[in-house]
Amino acid sequence: MSISHIEHIGIAVKSLDEAIPYYENVLGLKCYNVEEVKDQKVKTAFFMVGQTKIELLESTDPEGPIGKYIEKKGEGIHHIAFAVTNIEDQLKQIEAQGVRLIDQKPRKGAEGLDIAFLHPKSTLGVLTELCENKNNK
Amino acid sequence: MSISHIEHIGIAVKSLDEAIPYYENVLGLKCYNVEEVKDQKVKTAFFMVGQTKIELLESTDPEGPIGKYIEKKGEGIHHIAFAVTNIEDQLKQIEAQGVRLIDQKPRKGAEGLDIAFLHPKSTLGVLTELCENKNNK
Repeated sequence: MSISHIEHIGIAVKSLDEAIPYYENVLGLKCYNVEEVKDQKVKTAFFMVGQTKIELLESTDPEGPIGKYIEKKGEGIHHIAFAVTNIEDQLKQIEAQGVRLIDQKPRKGAEGLDIAFLHPKSTLGVLTELCENKNNK
Repeated sequence: MSISHIEHIGIAVKSLDEAIPYYENVLGLKCYNVEEVKDQKVKTAFFMVGQTKIELLESTDPEGPIGKYIEKKGEGIHHIAFAVTNIEDQLKQIEAQGVRLIDQKPRKGAEGLDIAFLHPKSTLGVLTELCENKNNK
């Protein structure tokens, strides 16, 4: 695998309305985008910190992945996302190395990125996402 | 607060001997340093990913903070560390804003950085570290 940088850190929060003021007023970061990802049953808020984003995740459905996560573990760091190129090839390669994939093929995530998750059982407990930006931005 | 970038992501692992090969062979990162931090009862391994480090943390004592964390929650992402300047002033400022500090004053962490932890009860569940590099590197 070839990773260029940490694309984002995903953090589960109960309420964006409570969390955004903490990130802005205490940490001094600026929320530049709020977006709903219906597929994942979340509303997300983004902050840039150097070359990495912080992605706050509020559940829009108690049965969605973030709703269940907060129910079980409470608020906190949920996943780490690595920026890669040729995401399809990277998935094939690490699957051949024994990594269990949650997403066999990339799907569309927030901000139009191609994303795929790896199962924490095969990544030493860390829910891991690969992201590729194929947008012509 | 003024944060320049994410200095590192701390990840609790049961064994560096098991974890380092995953980070090197599967994720393709290079371990550039292994260091014991006796004060924290951990052995750490560092990888650079863009401008951010991944810091793997293996407990050297079941009663230390990482030993207890793994006992309770298992392996996984443990904390996020932000790079700041004037760490003493930043701590005073956020304490005045209502943030509960674990470390009232900075202490020495891995790689000779001045570090201080904020309590996750006042940071929306995220164990947060501030780091300042005062070394003349």
